[in-house]
Amino acid sequence: MFGKLRRLKQDVSGIALEESERLPSDERRRFLRNGLFTAGGAMVGGALAGISPRLGAAETQYPPEIPSWTRSLGPGVVTDPYGVPSPFEKGVIRRNVPWLTAEKTSSISFSPLQHLKGIITPNGLFFERHHAGRPEVDPQQHRLMIHGLVDRPIILSMEDLQRFPSVSQINFIECPANGGMEWRGAQLNSLQFLHGMVSCAEWTGVRLSTLLQEVGMKPEGKWLLAEGADGAAMTRSIPMEKALDDVIVAYAQNGEALRREQGYPIRLVVPGWEGNTHVKWLRRLEVGDKPWMQREETSKYTDLMPDGTAHGFTWVMEAKSVITSPCPEMPLRGSGIYQIEGIAWSGKGKVKAVDVSVDGGRNWRQARLREPVMSKSLTRFSLEWNWDGNPALLQSRVIDETGYVQPTLSQLKEARGTNSIYHKNAIQTWQVTPDGSVNNVQV
Amino acid sequence: MFGKLRRLKQDVSGIALEESERLPSDERRRFLRNGLFTAGGAMVGGALAGISPRLGAAETQYPPEIPSWTRSLGPGVVTDPYGVPSPFEKGVIRRNVPWLTAEKTSSISFSPLQHLKGIITPNGLFFERHHAGRPEVDPQQHRLMIHGLVDRPIILSMEDLQRFPSVSQINFIECPANGGMEWRGAQLNSLQFLHGMVSCAEWTGVRLSTLLQEVGMKPEGKWLLAEGADGAAMTRSIPMEKALDDVIVAYAQNGEALRREQGYPIRLVVPGWEGNTHVKWLRRLEVGDKPWMQREETSKYTDLMPDGTAHGFTWVMEAKSVITSPCPEMPLRGSGIYQIEGIAWSGKGKVKAVDVSVDGGRNWRQARLREPVMSKSLTRFSLEWNWDGNPALLQSRVIDETGYVQPTLSQLKEARGTNSIYHKNAIQTWQVTPDGSVNNVQV
Repeated sequence: MFGKLRRLKQDVSGIALEESERLPSDERRRFLRNGLFTAGGAMVGGALAGISPRLGAAETQYPPEIPSWTRSLGPGVVTDPYGVPSPFEKGVIRRNVPWLTAEKTSSISFSPLQHLKGIITPNGLFFERHHAGRPEVDPQQHRLMIHGLVDRPIILSMEDLQRFPSVSQINFIECPANGGMEWRGAQLNSLQFLHGMVSCAEWTGVRLSTLLQEVGMKPEGKWLLAEGADGAAMTRSIPMEKALDDVIVAYAQNGEALRREQGYPIRLVVPGWEGNTHVKWLRRLEVGDKPWMQREETSKYTDLMPDGTAHGFTWVMEAKSVITSPCPEMPLRGSGIYQIEGIAWSGKGKVKAVDVSVDGGRNWRQARLREPVMSKSLTRFSLEWNWDGNPALLQSRVIDETGYVQPTLSQLKEARGTNSIYHKNAIQTWQVTPDGSVNNVQV
Repeated sequence: MFGKLRRLKQDVSGIALEESERLPSDERRRFLRNGLFTAGGAMVGGALAGISPRLGAAETQYPPEIPSWTRSLGPGVVTDPYGVPSPFEKGVIRRNVPWLTAEKTSSISFSPLQHLKGIITPNGLFFERHHAGRPEVDPQQHRLMIHGLVDRPIILSMEDLQRFPSVSQINFIECPANGGMEWRGAQLNSLQFLHGMVSCAEWTGVRLSTLLQEVGMKPEGKWLLAEGADGAAMTRSIPMEKALDDVIVAYAQNGEALRREQGYPIRLVVPGWEGNTHVKWLRRLEVGDKPWMQREETSKYTDLMPDGTAHGFTWVMEAKSVITSPCPEMPLRGSGIYQIEGIAWSGKGKVKAVDVSVDGGRNWRQARLREPVMSKSLTRFSLEWNWDGNPALLQSRVIDETGYVQPTLSQLKEARGTNSIYHKNAIQTWQVTPDGSVNNVQV
């Protein structure tokens, strides 16, 4: 009995169990013994009954003791207001970087990737980027106008839109400036701030092809202009081939109406393309015969090359991956077995494979992809790693279904120089130090 | 110009456009003209410039006029606190039925299915059922004990759990009492209250088979007892075959930590089985050689038959479907084309097909299944329907991959009598009246 309690005390202090306490029988058990049980797991002795008067407050909550919350009635159901996370998760929120934000309206919030699991980003944590704040659009008064080189221009209410056939699809959205502050050297030591402008949701809405069929396009209609109802009247040109492929006018995200910061009541979802083409608070679609060359596709969201020219319309978010655990916010706690875990995605389709290196890219092992693997969606990968406590350089490298391989930072710089702030999809390196801390480094 | 403005006024008042204003060219366009444009859609004239001084306040928000929210800067990003829905969606919440709730702690909240899209239920709207309120469990002090007929009993911290290999899967959970108040006649006229105890999420956690491999089961270990840390110490027996199949100890739901009302910090997810087997606030798993015959699997959650005997351990949620639009909360607004839409699910695997009837089951048409179709998950279906304004009886009928066909109410009553309050998966009938209202009826 006291043997058990002492082991529980060891559990509290984080001291590892002695080797002799475990009964290895195969490789699998040895892995778990070496890895997991240095982290605080404790074996239970044979007898489970009885509470020692020597137990501290915390220990009285552990099995087999009955914790305080089992001894009382909890509060009732959550009806009004809308449900929120546990108070113990209050640190799991979107954050911004003060020096990146504008004076009157902070314009970027980063998703806490270090805390997220699976592929769905909850709506309350989905990253934000807007160019003139979040307008409060009244859905009863909001309309979508479709006009230009069409046979029958229309203005649709939000109720009209719901009467068209709808589709749902799980797609990521990534701002092309995600990680853009790192082109000229490592500046931030945070997964959330380095990569947190990518999120993924189930979107429901009407295919743009359905709406364009309704208005009837003239043969010379080769481009589409999408305009938002925000103060920036955020405007992008989209070629008709993409518009007719997989673009939707979305009114729902993860089952419910879009959040205000995501374009309530409607936005474009342009799967796999850079975030700002997914025009939010969508109010106008115009069919034309050439691109409009608006501010956000000329002065901004173009890629400045070393020779001073700029590449425009670099819409597709090329394949990228990042290790989310460990990361600067989630350091290691002593040597042993860990699950290296991360997310990968490609704007061109499905993730085919992810390789992981623990020695800065000299040797690679193929990670396990977690189901479901869907096109233009986040995909989770993981790989078991027995950390020996020595310095390590963790990297992940995605290969998508087109055969595209995520480039190293030096390969990307060689191709693109360092003038751009967009489309930085290079391999991320996390430096692990002997004390378990994890740092952003460029190798 | 005034022609356009008049049409916008018609749009406001909901008056249908005249037939002569549209140019039919094929069946598709005729469908859209007859259907959508009686709902308030308006065609735009040729000229788009100019604002008339005769416009009312609401109309100045319509395209091509520039709405007020485009003329100002909105507030900045949402960081702290956690993001919430638009104020315009404040009515989209879980609700309870006062006469169904206990005195001190209301124990059921229903998900607003009438407002949901796609298959993911946002965490703030996921239905609740608990037996002694929502305990506030401290994850730092919470432990999971696995003991009984095992070689190496263990007590795991929440951090330990995260070091095991994890999986994610999208599964529905349904309370077996969903719709249970309707066995002896129609009592409620609400989709939310009749069917709102089913929801669906992406769950992430550790396979139970992984944990059971770690502790090493003795050969006679054929059953598993799962116990919650709530005031009810909610307890269920689960046969080992299921435990080793697809059950997980989940710590995340839709990407983030479980919500408190969903079992924070950990719960079982037992795909396809009745909701109360998905034990929340999980603190203890015991391996044994026979079921424990606890309260919630004997006195409750058994099915009382006409002869006075009770069927126990009716774990699997058999295939079910329901039309979510239209429904009592979402009536029709005038004749024309609608998308009949709904959800279907099966505890035995994938949905194979859904049929829809508009005449009370005499004639059936096959609905379109929306991707993704996943095992033991919600699946969305839809079917276009040109409502002529006459009375109608809408029904949906799911067939799952095992060939099981959702029964009619009379078939179900014939097999099970009317003494039970659980597992009512009969076909739902919605009666449509000429004024467009939709009512719960039993036929």
